[in-house]
Amino acid sequence: MAQEFVHVTYLAHGKQGTDWNKKAQGIAIGLTVGSWTDLPEAKRAAMQKHLGHVVAVEEGGTDAQGLSHARLTIAYPTANFTPDIPALLTSVFGKLSMDGQIRLVDIQLPAAFQRQFPGPKYGIAGIREQLNAHDRPLLMSIFKSVIGHDIPTLTEQFYQQALGGVDLVKDDEIFFDESYAPFEQRIAACRAAAERAQQETGKFTLYAANLTGPVTEIFDKARRGVEAGASALLLNVLTYGYDVLHRLAADPAITVPIMAHPALAGALYPSAHYGVSAHVLLGQLMRIAGADLSLYPSAYGSVALERAETLKIADALLAPAGELKRAFPVPSAGIHPGLVPYLYRDLGNDTVINAGGGVHGHPAGAAAGGRAFNAAIDAVVAGRTLTEAAEASPELQTALDLWGNPAEVQK
Amino acid sequence: MAQEFVHVTYLAHGKQGTDWNKKAQGIAIGLTVGSWTDLPEAKRAAMQKHLGHVVAVEEGGTDAQGLSHARLTIAYPTANFTPDIPALLTSVFGKLSMDGQIRLVDIQLPAAFQRQFPGPKYGIAGIREQLNAHDRPLLMSIFKSVIGHDIPTLTEQFYQQALGGVDLVKDDEIFFDESYAPFEQRIAACRAAAERAQQETGKFTLYAANLTGPVTEIFDKARRGVEAGASALLLNVLTYGYDVLHRLAADPAITVPIMAHPALAGALYPSAHYGVSAHVLLGQLMRIAGADLSLYPSAYGSVALERAETLKIADALLAPAGELKRAFPVPSAGIHPGLVPYLYRDLGNDTVINAGGGVHGHPAGAAAGGRAFNAAIDAVVAGRTLTEAAEASPELQTALDLWGNPAEVQK
Repeated sequence: MAQEFVHVTYLAHGKQGTDWNKKAQGIAIGLTVGSWTDLPEAKRAAMQKHLGHVVAVEEGGTDAQGLSHARLTIAYPTANFTPDIPALLTSVFGKLSMDGQIRLVDIQLPAAFQRQFPGPKYGIAGIREQLNAHDRPLLMSIFKSVIGHDIPTLTEQFYQQALGGVDLVKDDEIFFDESYAPFEQRIAACRAAAERAQQETGKFTLYAANLTGPVTEIFDKARRGVEAGASALLLNVLTYGYDVLHRLAADPAITVPIMAHPALAGALYPSAHYGVSAHVLLGQLMRIAGADLSLYPSAYGSVALERAETLKIADALLAPAGELKRAFPVPSAGIHPGLVPYLYRDLGNDTVINAGGGVHGHPAGAAAGGRAFNAAIDAVVAGRTLTEAAEASPELQTALDLWGNPAEVQK
Repeated sequence: MAQEFVHVTYLAHGKQGTDWNKKAQGIAIGLTVGSWTDLPEAKRAAMQKHLGHVVAVEEGGTDAQGLSHARLTIAYPTANFTPDIPALLTSVFGKLSMDGQIRLVDIQLPAAFQRQFPGPKYGIAGIREQLNAHDRPLLMSIFKSVIGHDIPTLTEQFYQQALGGVDLVKDDEIFFDESYAPFEQRIAACRAAAERAQQETGKFTLYAANLTGPVTEIFDKARRGVEAGASALLLNVLTYGYDVLHRLAADPAITVPIMAHPALAGALYPSAHYGVSAHVLLGQLMRIAGADLSLYPSAYGSVALERAETLKIADALLAPAGELKRAFPVPSAGIHPGLVPYLYRDLGNDTVINAGGGVHGHPAGAAAGGRAFNAAIDAVVAGRTLTEAAEASPELQTALDLWGNPAEVQK
């Protein structure tokens, strides 16, 4: 088999006069065969296929603080890894993450290596089919609060959200204490509420239940959730490890979409000098490991990421990538109906509009909150302004009055 | 049961004039019950036990960039969590990690909550007993390179290291492709080499084999490793997730010490504004989850951390903490014999001197490299200088000539 390489690009900062070519060479050898010049000739031939090499060194000059910086791209033979994210991250950014000011900004996987990852089981097309929702963004809402609530309370919350015509409802990601509302019973109760609401609205609503507990039990628990009627699962991928997502996605018994939550990702992506780019963490790695939907901070809400970075995350989830299905980008946090035109401008139909307070905080209740969002979504898809749409939707008008209509202001 | 709280301290930066009390209040409510002022009186009584509260807000003034900063301490009821690290991190730094310039700098766990974590199964006392090594720092060395080597080559490397009198040998953490040297066969071969060396040196050498593979199989694999004769296991805790360490440590069938590798930690700890402090990641969380030994960058070597931070990591591993056993601090990277006096000054006997190149790079070979380190360790324990000790140890003299003797220079 021909040798294949994972290409990894780093942004490194260092003292003025840093020899970046030497640094790159040190990475390429140090993180693969360990040493090269010391190796006897005979040994080199055997080791050649494990040796990393430098692809590019782009020096970037000296910045305001007098630091030199460079983008270094290293090729690592896939022969050195097993096809899983712990192996990949440990190898290309394990020890290296601690070695000065260095940030992992890009990973390119060769096709044969990437094919060994599961990728999304359903992806955008599969979820649209389940919901019979085509040619528009989906709408998701989040339980307002979950801790300490019993099943009747949560079921009523779910029902109200479903009545508003949302496509998905997710648990709060901090739902760990399940003593008041155990996993399988909660799933069964919300499933019944979804079916009850469907009789009213004609729409089925998926429920992403937060999958928690010991990693030794989580796979069985997921299967039990599916048997209990789960229509989706939510996973805190970064606190559990990407391999948990990978193995859930690879399990044929998990016959529901998996939604990836970005909890803890902000400890990794925001620094200019350290960590890992958000589009790698929340786009590429989530997709190859098998997320059908990936949440991340939108550029417009309360917990914001730069717009360019959000577009890169979405691109990593959506762009053609071998046989990998496309995953839904879910820009989140502080979303209200007035922001729908921005989200639509950025991603068109291939996104999920995700709102917590923007649904529950509606003065007329969660069902009205959902209808306000759906009116906004219908408007942008039809090319109308929210102001126009609000004439026929008193719920939307109320939402725009409360939270504003910034897209209109910009015109 | 009386209410108990996890206290978490954050360092937050923000615009001048930020209302830090309001920010803290928002965290305390937002990350627990969701909302409070909206709740009806009757509901509040039921929710009181789930409500977080603000313990302290210490404003720190305005920094050089015109940013205001503050230390915020929030108390989270343990009733909201399950006793595992995914629940803890997701709850206290999940969404919050993405909410502006905020860094998690301290966690205080109440005794009853902490008792639900396994902690180190052997700890310092247990490892010393296994090695019959008391009243001195231990010595560890690392395979020089592992990728692509077969079992006879690795076994010979192991044997040479053991001959030098090292207490532990660890795999390289990037050892993932095991096709040339499968896990159980490698373990059995190194075990035999350890016993062979013991006949020469009178010392047994532990071998920490890198535990890799799918998270769905890793627990069985660990048990098979133990059956094959493993004397220790190495785990890349951050890329696999802390809960994998937790469940390995809690498994009574894993009857060997576990060594935690910090791979990827540098993506989380170095920024002044974001991420999680190194002593939380590599000290406290490693210890409660069950690491018997925790590696981290030393203050003196090639991949360095500030000395004050290394001492905080060591303190988190060593200080009394309920019934938790003490875990070995293993300051690593670029260690040579001339640095032993610094490591001994910082930690005394309760540390592992960990060397890769400092053992293998010795001009007379790995066994001589080990003997040079042991001479340095014996010297500092006896209160002698390395220069004095080198008179009786040509191996140490060679090492000091090659890598320097900075402690001597400082006198």
